Amino acid sequence: MARTRSRRPRPTVGLPLLDIPFRQPRPPRPPYDWLSADDLERIHTASLEILETVGIDFLDDEALDLWQRAGAHVDRTARRVRIDRDLLLPTIATAPASFRWRARNPAHDVVIGGGALAFGPCGGMAYAADLDRGRRPGTMADYENLLRLSQSCHALHFAAWEQVTAQDVPVSARHLHRVRAAFRLTDKVVMEAAHGRVIPADTLAMMRLVYGDLDGDPVTGDVINVNSPLRYDERMLGGLISYARAGQVTFITPFILAGAMSPVTMAAALAQQNAEVLAGVALTQLVRPGAPVIYGGFTTPIDLRRGSPAFGTPESAWAALVGGQLARRYGLPYRGSGGLTSSQTADAQAANESLWSLWPAVLAGTDLIMHAAGWLDGGLTVSFEKFILDLENLAMFGHFLNGFTIDDDALALDAIAEVGPGGHHLGTDHTQARYRTAFFPTTLADRQGHDAWLAAGGQDAAQRANTVWKAMLAAYEPPPLDPGTAEALDDYVAGRERELTNVRLYD
Amino acid sequence: MARTRSRRPRPTVGLPLLDIPFRQPRPPRPPYDWLSADDLERIHTASLEILETVGIDFLDDEALDLWQRAGAHVDRTARRVRIDRDLLLPTIATAPASFRWRARNPAHDVVIGGGALAFGPCGGMAYAADLDRGRRPGTMADYENLLRLSQSCHALHFAAWEQVTAQDVPVSARHLHRVRAAFRLTDKVVMEAAHGRVIPADTLAMMRLVYGDLDGDPVTGDVINVNSPLRYDERMLGGLISYARAGQVTFITPFILAGAMSPVTMAAALAQQNAEVLAGVALTQLVRPGAPVIYGGFTTPIDLRRGSPAFGTPESAWAALVGGQLARRYGLPYRGSGGLTSSQTADAQAANESLWSLWPAVLAGTDLIMHAAGWLDGGLTVSFEKFILDLENLAMFGHFLNGFTIDDDALALDAIAEVGPGGHHLGTDHTQARYRTAFFPTTLADRQGHDAWLAAGGQDAAQRANTVWKAMLAAYEPPPLDPGTAEALDDYVAGRERELTNVRLYD
Repeated sequence: MARTRSRRPRPTVGLPLLDIPFRQPRPPRPPYDWLSADDLERIHTASLEILETVGIDFLDDEALDLWQRAGAHVDRTARRVRIDRDLLLPTIATAPASFRWRARNPAHDVVIGGGALAFGPCGGMAYAADLDRGRRPGTMADYENLLRLSQSCHALHFAAWEQVTAQDVPVSARHLHRVRAAFRLTDKVVMEAAHGRVIPADTLAMMRLVYGDLDGDPVTGDVINVNSPLRYDERMLGGLISYARAGQVTFITPFILAGAMSPVTMAAALAQQNAEVLAGVALTQLVRPGAPVIYGGFTTPIDLRRGSPAFGTPESAWAALVGGQLARRYGLPYRGSGGLTSSQTADAQAANESLWSLWPAVLAGTDLIMHAAGWLDGGLTVSFEKFILDLENLAMFGHFLNGFTIDDDALALDAIAEVGPGGHHLGTDHTQARYRTAFFPTTLADRQGHDAWLAAGGQDAAQRANTVWKAMLAAYEPPPLDPGTAEALDDYVAGRERELTNVRLYD
Repeated sequence: MARTRSRRPRPTVGLPLLDIPFRQPRPPRPPYDWLSADDLERIHTASLEILETVGIDFLDDEALDLWQRAGAHVDRTARRVRIDRDLLLPTIATAPASFRWRARNPAHDVVIGGGALAFGPCGGMAYAADLDRGRRPGTMADYENLLRLSQSCHALHFAAWEQVTAQDVPVSARHLHRVRAAFRLTDKVVMEAAHGRVIPADTLAMMRLVYGDLDGDPVTGDVINVNSPLRYDERMLGGLISYARAGQVTFITPFILAGAMSPVTMAAALAQQNAEVLAGVALTQLVRPGAPVIYGGFTTPIDLRRGSPAFGTPESAWAALVGGQLARRYGLPYRGSGGLTSSQTADAQAANESLWSLWPAVLAGTDLIMHAAGWLDGGLTVSFEKFILDLENLAMFGHFLNGFTIDDDALALDAIAEVGPGGHHLGTDHTQARYRTAFFPTTLADRQGHDAWLAAGGQDAAQRANTVWKAMLAAYEPPPLDPGTAEALDDYVAGRERELTNVRLYD
């Protein structure tokens, strides 16, 4: 078991993104509750009725067994489960309100729940894009570079979430290479796909090579997407059961495009979301009471003219806020998303939709904000430039949520008197002593004025971000990994890669 | 006096920005208070101490007379006034908590304070820019086009705030042409510069041609910028006194770049801001008790490497939130800003900084959010593309703040049961009956997917905004103006233009 000390990347002039301490923001204010208590209760009650009367499909025999043993109404032919509230609510009550998620560097452990916020990168993208090469199928080299960026900038608290699919590696071996790359290049929490039973089994085996006996200690995990409406498929249930049994983390997250996977009204979409989440959370607790599990929300409208998802809209902002209220109602940690956009390029649309995701997510009291860096193209593409633009927003939220001091020193009445009306404060002792650290240090914003900006090439923010990610990669140093552990991981990957050749796995 | 009926621009396919009803959003949730009551009180107390011990300069004899008569400590040589809290606090107490600001079309009256939000465009820009012609000195033609856009889109509740300076009109006549253009092209509230005594006198004369005897009824007004630290100059005091005496609106707004015009610490910057605002508000009430006046905040950091303002930062977000708390403490309406950015182009930086202005402004319970459309280049330039990008954000906030319905119809348990697990909701009666109006209708967002986007030209959001503002101008129709009133305005402008030739006015 290798534990390493935190090492900072070497200092780089002009890259404040590399100087952020690893620290989870703690919002000082209560979450911004959108619904009244009565309206929240209506959604809660509607979701219980859905599970009792309509029911929900679990396309996996072991899951059906678990429900049957627990006393739910199980129709084995239809693979449909109806769950009374008297079964559901006590079952979810064993889920923990917070837990510590271990990284191989203990300084990079992440607390989920209890008031601390964590930001994670985008996950599951098929394509990679940058301004130099445009959009292309993702490769292992792209994934490794995204791991390096995620490791380097402590605006992100997670490093490994398949920021892009390595399409140059066979499906049967991708998960092995992903996990090994993550341990080689990062020492933050490593997530790995909850797809079926084989991938989680390999993941857990590799985790044990790094951490030793897990003993229910959460070190990995993944999203469990519900196939809305009201269906968990075999792939996701294999992952849910495998990870929950090992005490690893599941984020139960319905993928609801309101108008397609749920009714078009947000009240119904949220009631359905809540029913789906609660059923999944309950199943984790039937597998292993106390297993760490997160209430996930990803409800957003479908663009009914295009048939495509719409991100960063007023409706998704409501969903983000109400999701937080629902999660708190059940004492569950809450997972949301930041940085979502349909845009094909790191432009003003991308920025607008991303902040229309991120502001509501932060206000919602979200514990874990995923997809917070790099997402483009409705989730099909990770953009290196967007990644950097997003990191700056995350860093700004980290700074913002720390708040500012109000004491005699900060109120500075002496300095105000010393300068007096009509003077200026640039040269005072009070300013001189504080100016280097007084304000959030931007990496990307250009404030030099029109003529200087034109003379310097007239770059937009995406072009500057292109320079930044290259500089960050140049400054990257891998965190130390115990050579014995590295070798054990290599051996495991090589052995399993042979065994799994031509095996059809969920990708 | 001409009052006209509201006329909508003719319907234009694909421009939902033209279909917004004129309605001020009413945030359904309480403002997001950033400071504890104790910390807020420390800032309040510090600001009172500043006014009592350091004092504040009023570079205008009439203002000094007013303070002297009220019983303040006035040093006529230094033109400095020290104001005891026992004088200050009762004096500001006569300011109204809310008021109705009249437009020449009563359907476009704006309520300031009392829970209704109003958005206004940018003001005071020297340059205009668009993607076709780049940046150039502003002209009357630019200003007129910006009036047309502001009139057409009811995401904005004001139309006329000198969105750009008409540099092709002599300084001595600009205000006359501005006001006339505003009445010709819009029927929303018309603001006009509070610069000195001549411009407000002309403005009030022209307002009487349109509205008849004003009788203290607010129909115009402007920002009063404090020359921070702690100085009101002759230009601003002439405007303040002129408008307050006529019962017109003043927004008392210190222009504080923390680190230059105030200490670098945000606690001190906000204490100084509060002292400056309260002194100006008190002066309006000495001029005319009950005069409508707005607490304005514009405090933001200076970028200490560049010596330039920094907009849309975590610090300005704190300032926006705390400014709202302070205004509420005194029962005053609150003016903030949205859409601020240093960027030179309508890119991701512009979008990010703008939403880092706009989200805090909305959360702060701001009554009046100015600079909410068009601002670029640190306030030097209005961009036509940025104008459209901002309008979309304002429209989204209007939609968002309306909230969504939770009732049996919206919870749609029947539709959920009808579709059942694994189905889809696209074709249900419930969806079909609602899909046209279910979601916020975007004008700008591209969601067609990568290949279709590329095939359509691969435009970014700014390029699409370029198409939109041209389409909006093409669809524009002027609101009717009584011909007699139009002639009276023409006569006034012609007469005063001759009288003021070669007169040096504040521009």
